[in-house]
Amino acid sequence: MSDLPAEFARIARYFRPLAGPGSLALTDDAAVLAPPAGRELVLTADAMVAGVHFLPDDPPDLIARKLLRTNLSDLAAMGAVPLGYLLTISVPRDTPESWFSSFSAGLAQDQAEFAISLLGGDSTSTPGPVTLSLTALGTVATGQAIRRSGARPGDGLWVTGAIGDGALGLLAAQGTLPDPTGWLAGRYRLPQPRLNFARYDIVSAALDISDGLVQDVGHICRASGCAAEIMSIQVPRSDAALAAGEAFLPLCLTGGDDYELALAVPPAAEAALPAHAASLGVAVTRIGHFLAGPPGVRVIGPDGADLALTRGGWSHFP
Amino acid sequence: MSDLPAEFARIARYFRPLAGPGSLALTDDAAVLAPPAGRELVLTADAMVAGVHFLPDDPPDLIARKLLRTNLSDLAAMGAVPLGYLLTISVPRDTPESWFSSFSAGLAQDQAEFAISLLGGDSTSTPGPVTLSLTALGTVATGQAIRRSGARPGDGLWVTGAIGDGALGLLAAQGTLPDPTGWLAGRYRLPQPRLNFARYDIVSAALDISDGLVQDVGHICRASGCAAEIMSIQVPRSDAALAAGEAFLPLCLTGGDDYELALAVPPAAEAALPAHAASLGVAVTRIGHFLAGPPGVRVIGPDGADLALTRGGWSHFP
Repeated sequence: MSDLPAEFARIARYFRPLAGPGSLALTDDAAVLAPPAGRELVLTADAMVAGVHFLPDDPPDLIARKLLRTNLSDLAAMGAVPLGYLLTISVPRDTPESWFSSFSAGLAQDQAEFAISLLGGDSTSTPGPVTLSLTALGTVATGQAIRRSGARPGDGLWVTGAIGDGALGLLAAQGTLPDPTGWLAGRYRLPQPRLNFARYDIVSAALDISDGLVQDVGHICRASGCAAEIMSIQVPRSDAALAAGEAFLPLCLTGGDDYELALAVPPAAEAALPAHAASLGVAVTRIGHFLAGPPGVRVIGPDGADLALTRGGWSHFP
Repeated sequence: MSDLPAEFARIARYFRPLAGPGSLALTDDAAVLAPPAGRELVLTADAMVAGVHFLPDDPPDLIARKLLRTNLSDLAAMGAVPLGYLLTISVPRDTPESWFSSFSAGLAQDQAEFAISLLGGDSTSTPGPVTLSLTALGTVATGQAIRRSGARPGDGLWVTGAIGDGALGLLAAQGTLPDPTGWLAGRYRLPQPRLNFARYDIVSAALDISDGLVQDVGHICRASGCAAEIMSIQVPRSDAALAAGEAFLPLCLTGGDDYELALAVPPAAEAALPAHAASLGVAVTRIGHFLAGPPGVRVIGPDGADLALTRGGWSHFP
């Protein structure tokens, strides 16, 4: 017998063109890769489920790009350079060819943008929603990975871009929040990984904000053994987010899906940060600072009093 | 705010104890790993979906071990030594603690058996079936990864263990095939990755049989540019598989989930193979050979005539 079932024809048609060095053209049991000398590997994996992380009728190319970008955002937080990725996709048996065509076109577009290629993976059927998992590999000069644990009292707390667009964008994409320009939904559907931003010589700690600013800054505090204060009035919001009104401030501070970086920056390096950001065309804003104390995040509201938040961020489980 | 939602408590309780070198205790955005000098990385990813790859009421510890082992089987086929893994799990929101406890206990058991540890991952909720994805990393001496493409006409075609237990085991686990000893269902639920078996100096090509012997040997043929003949009477079957009767021979030859190795062995190395297998306590059997010709697999039945098979193996898609 020499005919191959549809599963393999589909891999050959849509995924082999995405395969890069080390992938063995997706025709072997595994990929084989020699990491560059003098560099460490950085590895991260994220899953996305239709109806949880994206809307089932989102365009497949944008689903693919979001999947890749959420993982690249983790590499960005470590100061790593992307190298390659492995992908598993579980889709219903009646998924049309057009879905695969669009999905793989989205990957191709972002592979070109981020200089990364497919190393391997798996495709399976599922009786449930489309479920995707991606493992991204990057590299960093040995010893120069940026950790969450490096923040020190006195460091400034900075964020890239604008905060809150992800959570508001979900509401906009669901049609429950006006979004005349489409900006918010676009930010929900297509994050911008801040690669090249977190540099070992500039920041002392970094993480990507995926589950809500307050909760995620709390992760830096716990890892670093210090506290943080956030001035809510300093938290950068997009014009579209501001147009939603101040009632949405708590959601902006605690919603997920921003994929901006939160950074601890030693005082001596803070002056250089805006120029670094400008060289990359990325906004950066000081929103508070780290201080001695038990790990925790205090959010100071517009009136100078502590802002009461019912939760710090997103959790998949009650 | 300093309280963490249940998602993080669960990671700390069930998955942090599994975390090994490079994982940064699962508290950072990614893992950081320096591969051993002089060795290449080998990377593979497989997904498993409840109702497709395992039965929804299978014991969670066995689900975890099967997930890990199916990936280790891919590493085994490349001649790689396991190094670590990343794991994403998507489970219903009401998944009980006991599920996580059993699932992580299964991982712990196999981590000890295979000297591998958790590097990172993600856990999410899903409105659908439990969906798991695992990326396994291994290493191999530079240039010594075993490929599917190395088979040459004249090489012997060998397999480890017994063929067909996986497919029969699914029937047994579903209660549609008698399995008085539980052997078949056990083989379906807990594959044995044949690590250390495929050695660069002994075999010219290898792959793990996951989608059916005939289809998978066809992959070696396509990659190597040659044909193969399988003598069905030589294909090793377990006592339990033989007890099912000859009517199940076609299913044994084309069913999935065996996770044994198919090996191309040059004539000069064939004499040494049984002793190598014995040293590992693994059975090995010559079931045919490779020959010149267009890629394809001919299966010769018990009567010496070509065996007509309606399919070569499993496909997730029609």
